[in-house]
Amino acid sequence: MLTRFLPFLLWSRGYDRSALVQDLIAAAVVTIMLVPQGMAYAMLAGLPPQAGLYAAMLPLLLYAAFGTSPALAVGPVAVVALMTAAAAGMVAEVGTPGYELAALWLALLSGAMLLLMGVFRLGFIASFLSHPVISGFITAAGILIAASQLRHVLGTDVRGRTLPEILPSFFRALDGISVPTLLLSLAVLVFLFWARAGLARLLQRLGLRAPVAKLLGRTGLLLAVVGSTLLVWALGLEARGVATLGAIPRGLPEFALPAFDLTLIQLLAAPALLIAIVGYVESISIAQTLATKTRTAIDPDRELVALGLANLGAGVSNAMPVTGGLSRTIVNHDAGARTPAAGAMTAVMIALAVLALTPLLELLPRATLAAIIIVAVVSLLDFRALPRTFAYSRADGAAMAATMAVTLLVGVEQGLLAGVALSLGLYLYRTSRPHIAVVGQVPGTEHFRNVARHHVTTDPAVLAIRVDESLYFPNARALENHVVQALAETPTLRDVVLQASAINYIDASALESLETINDRLRTAGVRFHLSEVKGPVMDQLRRSHLLEALSGQVFLTQFDAMAALSPEATRACLARPRCDTQRAPA
Amino acid sequence: MLTRFLPFLLWSRGYDRSALVQDLIAAAVVTIMLVPQGMAYAMLAGLPPQAGLYAAMLPLLLYAAFGTSPALAVGPVAVVALMTAAAAGMVAEVGTPGYELAALWLALLSGAMLLLMGVFRLGFIASFLSHPVISGFITAAGILIAASQLRHVLGTDVRGRTLPEILPSFFRALDGISVPTLLLSLAVLVFLFWARAGLARLLQRLGLRAPVAKLLGRTGLLLAVVGSTLLVWALGLEARGVATLGAIPRGLPEFALPAFDLTLIQLLAAPALLIAIVGYVESISIAQTLATKTRTAIDPDRELVALGLANLGAGVSNAMPVTGGLSRTIVNHDAGARTPAAGAMTAVMIALAVLALTPLLELLPRATLAAIIIVAVVSLLDFRALPRTFAYSRADGAAMAATMAVTLLVGVEQGLLAGVALSLGLYLYRTSRPHIAVVGQVPGTEHFRNVARHHVTTDPAVLAIRVDESLYFPNARALENHVVQALAETPTLRDVVLQASAINYIDASALESLETINDRLRTAGVRFHLSEVKGPVMDQLRRSHLLEALSGQVFLTQFDAMAALSPEATRACLARPRCDTQRAPA
Repeated sequence: MLTRFLPFLLWSRGYDRSALVQDLIAAAVVTIMLVPQGMAYAMLAGLPPQAGLYAAMLPLLLYAAFGTSPALAVGPVAVVALMTAAAAGMVAEVGTPGYELAALWLALLSGAMLLLMGVFRLGFIASFLSHPVISGFITAAGILIAASQLRHVLGTDVRGRTLPEILPSFFRALDGISVPTLLLSLAVLVFLFWARAGLARLLQRLGLRAPVAKLLGRTGLLLAVVGSTLLVWALGLEARGVATLGAIPRGLPEFALPAFDLTLIQLLAAPALLIAIVGYVESISIAQTLATKTRTAIDPDRELVALGLANLGAGVSNAMPVTGGLSRTIVNHDAGARTPAAGAMTAVMIALAVLALTPLLELLPRATLAAIIIVAVVSLLDFRALPRTFAYSRADGAAMAATMAVTLLVGVEQGLLAGVALSLGLYLYRTSRPHIAVVGQVPGTEHFRNVARHHVTTDPAVLAIRVDESLYFPNARALENHVVQALAETPTLRDVVLQASAINYIDASALESLETINDRLRTAGVRFHLSEVKGPVMDQLRRSHLLEALSGQVFLTQFDAMAALSPEATRACLARPRCDTQRAPA
Repeated sequence: MLTRFLPFLLWSRGYDRSALVQDLIAAAVVTIMLVPQGMAYAMLAGLPPQAGLYAAMLPLLLYAAFGTSPALAVGPVAVVALMTAAAAGMVAEVGTPGYELAALWLALLSGAMLLLMGVFRLGFIASFLSHPVISGFITAAGILIAASQLRHVLGTDVRGRTLPEILPSFFRALDGISVPTLLLSLAVLVFLFWARAGLARLLQRLGLRAPVAKLLGRTGLLLAVVGSTLLVWALGLEARGVATLGAIPRGLPEFALPAFDLTLIQLLAAPALLIAIVGYVESISIAQTLATKTRTAIDPDRELVALGLANLGAGVSNAMPVTGGLSRTIVNHDAGARTPAAGAMTAVMIALAVLALTPLLELLPRATLAAIIIVAVVSLLDFRALPRTFAYSRADGAAMAATMAVTLLVGVEQGLLAGVALSLGLYLYRTSRPHIAVVGQVPGTEHFRNVARHHVTTDPAVLAIRVDESLYFPNARALENHVVQALAETPTLRDVVLQASAINYIDASALESLETINDRLRTAGVRFHLSEVKGPVMDQLRRSHLLEALSGQVFLTQFDAMAALSPEATRACLARPRCDTQRAPA
């Protein structure tokens, strides 16, 4: 029981020296990535660099205690940092105390929401963000993130949160480009892109063993930070216009609840929910991919609780919203992390690094952090997903395209909401115009299929129809109209059988429609039957008057119905040799 | 072709003297009702009495030319008048020119929306108002309408648009009750309730022939108006505090486009859409009930066009929003209306009445109009619908209860929107947690049903499952979780067959889920098959990679699948005597 709430009791039992060594190595590698990334994502969120470093301390300890994924690397991530900037920018100017307060409340609110979703098992809320919407949003967010870093890459004043703001600002700012900053940015970018695969290869060629070379190959970010800082110091680049990080407060964060402000909380509630859901979806999909690979299991509800507590921790330690990040998780896993303890060790190493190294980071150029951000988000861009999705389903493609367009042109929250609204709207539109098929018997079988697609046998006196949708208010009249029209067109009609195999639910509006159909058919001297009604639907109909009023019967199967209503033809068809070749669709 | 746009070309061809006489009689009877009702509903809408009279002229002529229902009586109706008051009251005070302008723009906007919905065949939008929501809304609106007339019935200052406003105001105003007004109101109310059935009976007992007595029995409203006006005049009740109608401008309305005001239009767009939809739903259900009775047909798209033009006509003739009304339609039909010409004749008679009678209406007491309104809305109240709907479906019952509560407590628009939002939300919630059944063969048949409900045969090596819902993003993971759990619990598993008979659509998110299921089962050495995939779904899957990657096959029927995967057991089961007794649900 206790282990359900404190998963670390479970894995700490078998914890031995080999696990300790592996976790320590993984933690060291992740720390080397996380120090520069933490500062970079804080800059992306419009926060001082220490916010990103603090976000890699207490939240990691809390996730290690409550999380269920052994290698998920929690901390600041790019998309959540962008969403934080968008939401905090709505209520205050970057650099003001109000802005930092907003970021802390975003962490607290999204943490509380995740915790509640976990405790009340409401994780399914996240499934309302469809794959196409998430995928379109991540690509659009990646473009916005890269564009937002133009400012630091060029050393000039490019501003704005959406493309229609950023692009004109970019062209206006072209005159003010700082050439030394641009050259430094390009150098760091080229180095980082090369280092992703090249550094490990080079080290191996220099004689290091493959595993060691691979580990040390992860030090690209560290080398970029150290190298560019040394360059600024040696060439006096700060005087030539290269912006640097400036003083970072030494020491650990202070723990405190941020100032309470009800108006602020009301303004931030909706963006906090989106941050919570996007963060959770990102994190859980990384964790599940990893779990499939390692044949272990994660518990989505416990993950919600752990991520919720991690964000609450971020909110009380002057940090920023956190979630599981893709790149660091892969590194953590590849470096051999065996248990969540690796995360806790990372937190301790980050704390030591902050205590020891902050004075050295004063001359770190902002251009280097911008390059780190850009290299990180390039992997998020997936431009082929849009045509691929469109080819499969135009509705899904439209939802993806709308999410991307609105995110780029209007804003991140609006983009997500537009995507969700459009996906749901298109689904409702589709279910409001259900596919209705007239069915006939497949020769030699007891099976019934669409007359327009299969070579089947029908009886002119019996109309057998199948509605391919649950019957509910937006489509309640569709079946009514179809039956009334068929009745007018088929004077030979004696029986109508509704094959209900695809009807999963009948609401009160549709029930009235069925009663109307029954009444109209009865007036015309035609009986109305049902077949293959599912258990739950039958239970429901028993609570209505339809079954008593029904002019026909309820049959277990469509075959039973036809065998009773058209015995000779049905038996003759069953005896014929089977021929189920499909017709070409009309 | 031309008759499609001008339906009167069709019915005017066979128009003869007998039709003319019947239409004239019906028009006269409806006019007698419509003069008092028009003024009463204008009062309910917060407009001067002539607005209701003008609404019975041009709109009726336009509906007669374009409508398809022979007896539908268009004009001002109570629920639409209440919605007009709620919307216009949002932007201006009752009695100001801004208020009357708002009412005209509501007519124009809802007219334009109906017209567009008709031209672009968007009538299905109206089906998003489910039966329970409409029914709950009408009952709640009826209560609000009756409560809003307390003011005129008591001759005191009861104000407010919702119960929390009206009730305290009512108790505060009890001291100021005008006793002569109250006595007059009670007298008129008692007379009107009696007259609904009693007047015709009395006339028949007095020796009139039944049809004539029935016709003259419809004069209750007229008698109440004449009687109470005479009473006011004879007893000098005006001096004793009985409020009267006052001067009504003599003559016909002026035709003019109301002043253009973009801000006003933006404010009124949403309420105008709701007025358009509620008006259309009310009108079309009356027209369809009548059509079923008379075995004639109406065209919903043409009805949208006709109602749209009628409202545009109302907007340019100083009137108010109109739609088809239940009580006058019944009277029109019973009085023998044969063609829409009856409506045109009503319009002419109303115009003559306005030219001749307006000076006589000056002393008509407002209490009489309030009594007319109350008698009209009592027939709208259906309190038994709520428990009946709850018994059938708790979701529908909840939507109905929410619509009623929000309408009564917050407002009419909010009530409708809450009802629609809740109905859609509950539907989405249901589909996000689909019913998943394990199925087995019904002995002696080729049919497969839920193992939990029927005595069926299964094979421990083959898991056959049926999902009772289309697969789309909110439920994409549900099947995945179910299969993964079954895989862990059943070590003997060799094949999984997904019976897709209830799956009407598979979106991109669910496709990814199916691919994941296929991958996971393949890794575990289990094949994944599909059966009974519907034509449209199969077309869609052919555009994806799932069918190529599938470790198993796609079978036409579930029986084919089991016959191939578990041939002995399936054949043995088919040969057994049929026994399809249903189990008691767990």
